[in-house]
Amino acid sequence: MRKQKPQILVINDDGITSRGIKLLVEIASAFGDVHVVAPDKMQSGMGHAITVHSGINISPFHFEGTKSAFSCTGTPADCVKVAIYHLLKVKPDLCLSGINHGSNASLNVIYSGTMSAALEGSLEGIPSAGISFCNNYVDADLRASAKATKAVIEMMLHNKAHKNLCLNVNIPDVPLKNVKGIKFCRQAKGNWHEFYEIHKDKEGNEFLWLTGKFENLEKSKKDTDLWALDHNYISIVPINADMTAHPELKKIERWKTNW
Amino acid sequence: MRKQKPQILVINDDGITSRGIKLLVEIASAFGDVHVVAPDKMQSGMGHAITVHSGINISPFHFEGTKSAFSCTGTPADCVKVAIYHLLKVKPDLCLSGINHGSNASLNVIYSGTMSAALEGSLEGIPSAGISFCNNYVDADLRASAKATKAVIEMMLHNKAHKNLCLNVNIPDVPLKNVKGIKFCRQAKGNWHEFYEIHKDKEGNEFLWLTGKFENLEKSKKDTDLWALDHNYISIVPINADMTAHPELKKIERWKTNW
Repeated sequence: MRKQKPQILVINDDGITSRGIKLLVEIASAFGDVHVVAPDKMQSGMGHAITVHSGINISPFHFEGTKSAFSCTGTPADCVKVAIYHLLKVKPDLCLSGINHGSNASLNVIYSGTMSAALEGSLEGIPSAGISFCNNYVDADLRASAKATKAVIEMMLHNKAHKNLCLNVNIPDVPLKNVKGIKFCRQAKGNWHEFYEIHKDKEGNEFLWLTGKFENLEKSKKDTDLWALDHNYISIVPINADMTAHPELKKIERWKTNW
Repeated sequence: MRKQKPQILVINDDGITSRGIKLLVEIASAFGDVHVVAPDKMQSGMGHAITVHSGINISPFHFEGTKSAFSCTGTPADCVKVAIYHLLKVKPDLCLSGINHGSNASLNVIYSGTMSAALEGSLEGIPSAGISFCNNYVDADLRASAKATKAVIEMMLHNKAHKNLCLNVNIPDVPLKNVKGIKFCRQAKGNWHEFYEIHKDKEGNEFLWLTGKFENLEKSKKDTDLWALDHNYISIVPINADMTAHPELKKIERWKTNW
């Protein structure tokens, strides 16, 4: 009996026409049949949003190198749900999200559409990875990202990744020759210090525009993703959907409840 | 010297005109000065989305019982950032999100706009709580929610809640007299089994509508939020933004990295 090729679901949050998803499809198609369901527009910063108060439209999309491809008006997390519950006949063997233009390391993970799609895949029982390059420019040199993506897919297939595994992969913004390797890490504590620019539209109405500066709160901690990236390593953090703050739970259990 | 009243920031995701936020403001205003920054429309299911590719508008809003109130075109997480970085002169002492019409227990926390606003508050160093009533109907009996909200605020102030504490509070859908008390818990493992209804718009174009059925994957676990709610307790889960899957990290650290 011939072994079936791996079925690979590809999503992103930068939209179906972005450079990052094209490269991801190109690399993934060497490992199996690729199915794309990706947003029809930029969905960056969408976090784990899903569409619950309106409908979702999907349209077939011509995408070189894929077995099937659809653009979707929903969020990245919607795309995964639509793929699994509506479009695909069989559950994919692997779910890959990206390649994102910009870092999803540290706290960025909670705001990330890329990572919400990967997490959604893992919740559906599909080993998943979100892959992000720490460079926001559309014309960035993607060679290190290409090599890292290939290495991650190989590792996941070779090690028979657990069905609920979700990897947050980030690639440092340095030339390929300077990348030192791969490090498995935990998520660093960090914070955004925000600033709102005040602009005026054509009618003279004020609007606010978010800008901010990121601060690494664990600069010296060598087991974190930000340390790895700062030292030219690719960081891989396994994530899950359990947000319980276990140490805090121990503390507040002592509170007197006044019911 | 007279002690300054606590400054309380109130947000929600159902929109500034919802019944839940009105009740929350009414209760919170007995404890301090209330400042509201809330979405101008329904923002349910928005997860931790933030607005990074467009501007945000804010407008003063007449809101009985508040010290200041603004409606905002952004997401719940945007509302918190706008409050802290743009509107308020001093950092609030407490950040309260809700009262949400619908459960945010278990896995719902990752899709929840209510909880993203509370988490955002705690990331900014403000003790925060998201409060949700496990009933989606607009005309629901909110008496148990009112009593629970008062109890939570009292506990947080009395115990001098840590500045990064974020509580996910859920109130069971039973009459007030049947509520047994408050339980501190961890987040239960759960999953949504989705189904897409296919509808047609006026032009005959198909669109998909998300529906689903929730499954509790830890039915017998007494330390979980879903167990508490199923047994008529108010569940309180402290949450944080660290998504690292620590047990998985130990396993994949053994993988050979093929760089």
